[in-house]
Amino acid sequence: MGEFELIDRYFRSPAAAALEGNGVALGIGDDAAVLEMPAGRQLVAAIDTLVEGKHFPEGCAPRSIGHRALAVNLSDLAAMGAEPAWLLLALTLPDADAAFLDEFSQGLFELARQHHVVLVGGDTTAGPLSMSVQVLGSVPPGEAIARSGGRPGDLLYVSGTPGDAAAGLEHLLTSQPVEGADAGVLDPRLQYLLHRFLYPEPRVELGIALRGVASACIDISDGLAADAGKLAAASGCGASIEVERLPLSVALLDRAGRERAVSRALTGGDDYELCFTVSPARQAEFESRLANVKCRVTCIGRLDEKLSLRVTRAGLEVDCDTRGYDHFTAAG
Amino acid sequence: MGEFELIDRYFRSPAAAALEGNGVALGIGDDAAVLEMPAGRQLVAAIDTLVEGKHFPEGCAPRSIGHRALAVNLSDLAAMGAEPAWLLLALTLPDADAAFLDEFSQGLFELARQHHVVLVGGDTTAGPLSMSVQVLGSVPPGEAIARSGGRPGDLLYVSGTPGDAAAGLEHLLTSQPVEGADAGVLDPRLQYLLHRFLYPEPRVELGIALRGVASACIDISDGLAADAGKLAAASGCGASIEVERLPLSVALLDRAGRERAVSRALTGGDDYELCFTVSPARQAEFESRLANVKCRVTCIGRLDEKLSLRVTRAGLEVDCDTRGYDHFTAAG
Repeated sequence: MGEFELIDRYFRSPAAAALEGNGVALGIGDDAAVLEMPAGRQLVAAIDTLVEGKHFPEGCAPRSIGHRALAVNLSDLAAMGAEPAWLLLALTLPDADAAFLDEFSQGLFELARQHHVVLVGGDTTAGPLSMSVQVLGSVPPGEAIARSGGRPGDLLYVSGTPGDAAAGLEHLLTSQPVEGADAGVLDPRLQYLLHRFLYPEPRVELGIALRGVASACIDISDGLAADAGKLAAASGCGASIEVERLPLSVALLDRAGRERAVSRALTGGDDYELCFTVSPARQAEFESRLANVKCRVTCIGRLDEKLSLRVTRAGLEVDCDTRGYDHFTAAG
Repeated sequence: MGEFELIDRYFRSPAAAALEGNGVALGIGDDAAVLEMPAGRQLVAAIDTLVEGKHFPEGCAPRSIGHRALAVNLSDLAAMGAEPAWLLLALTLPDADAAFLDEFSQGLFELARQHHVVLVGGDTTAGPLSMSVQVLGSVPPGEAIARSGGRPGDLLYVSGTPGDAAAGLEHLLTSQPVEGADAGVLDPRLQYLLHRFLYPEPRVELGIALRGVASACIDISDGLAADAGKLAAASGCGASIEVERLPLSVALLDRAGRERAVSRALTGGDDYELCFTVSPARQAEFESRLANVKCRVTCIGRLDEKLSLRVTRAGLEVDCDTRGYDHFTAAG
């Protein structure tokens, strides 16, 4: 299979069905895509790369890789409160492996359809397995939620149950692969944690609901404590997180025990949940907005006037590594 | 040096100077960029990846890699007749090598400044050296130049002197590196050919001048014959290229001799010139437009009603590999 057949079979044909009514004047197959921006909106653009062995383990299910390549980018748009519209995919593959491409593209397109996002262009290259996805979307003018809008006193929230994905990845990295029928006998709590790593749900709907009511927002990719710290720093504030308030899933608690669950929730990566702040004056409005969003959110602390992120238990500060993942100083 | 210092030193700081007046509501440093589209225009988006050992040789000058990463994308926008505005960079690096980053970012920003393109976001990852650049730009509604607008009888043009870059790359791949003071003694014809590979000039100005007058356009990355064939096929036509009309540089002729020069011009890759068609009825208008464009263009043939691309010499068809580069069937 050559490059052009590959593009046609796995990407152009599945994308074609979704093109109409999505403002696509010219999609896959020309030198660039031509797109109609909805009138009176700002363009929102993000790009994120996944590299085999860094963002997903070798031998990871291709369907998960396709899902995650898009999910991590949709999560960035969610953190801005943007509506996603289009994606471009730059895919680097060791070879034109039909089985891989079939599953990878299914994972990508399933998530794209859920969010009405259309593949409009890309690039395929031979090389070590990696991919960059670019997502384009829009917001009403001035309504994008930056990291920098938080103020001392604002309430600090997190969506979902952070730490699950890190526990799922830990299992993937330390266990032997379970194939075929045997996969069905996995502990359902473990299945849940694996699913949270392999198929994160970008919080697009929540991000849109937060527009005009959250003062700042960031998505959690490097660990809750590190990313909350980035939000606080961008806002010129400090923040405190109360351990007792952390929303820990039953599966994580059961598998890891409370201490390790807390550690995974604070410093594990790959959650793709949103961490955001709301002024106490807007709290009632915020809660009424949440009625329509199918996603748990939990207040875990506050911004304050100090210039650091602190984690407290029973009111006392506890040690927590808040540096987050750094690609160039990380061990291994 | 960690990931965040790296981003700040080599990308965020140099980009900051260029942000104002370019419609950037929110640039590098948040989850996504927020951009103001010029009113009443269509968005044009392209993404292209360079992988070490595939798109540039190992040990290639980092300044060239930075230049080419952006140039190949600007070339895609040029082929649509679009004005580029913003870029996002997804950079995967084996390690945070300050010398590499310094030169790479210089190469990228020099070309970005020339075209008033602003870096607004990106991603850095540890892994095998590769990078995906996304360029965003715009066109007046309906004026993007697709590949598919050509009609039988249209004149086929090419910009610049194709084949130079392929000859430059061939030298890079087959010769020992020449360092320091010795580099100055290189044959100036060879220097020119190397420069054509290492620092291609995307034909943005020409592409804009072609809007409303060219019937179809494509940029040449996989070889003139292959890419002209793609334009013809997208237009539902065939095409013929006359060998005698090929614009060959003196440097290419001198270094390679006429036969190999013709072969490089037809089948060598990496030219990043434009190949486009003009209806004979628009030829006078087209030529008047060219008066303001500092770029040679040459008529090399015509579209016709056959369904293939042919190369002729003295009116007779000659053999030519018109398949172009394919990442997944290419040898080596």
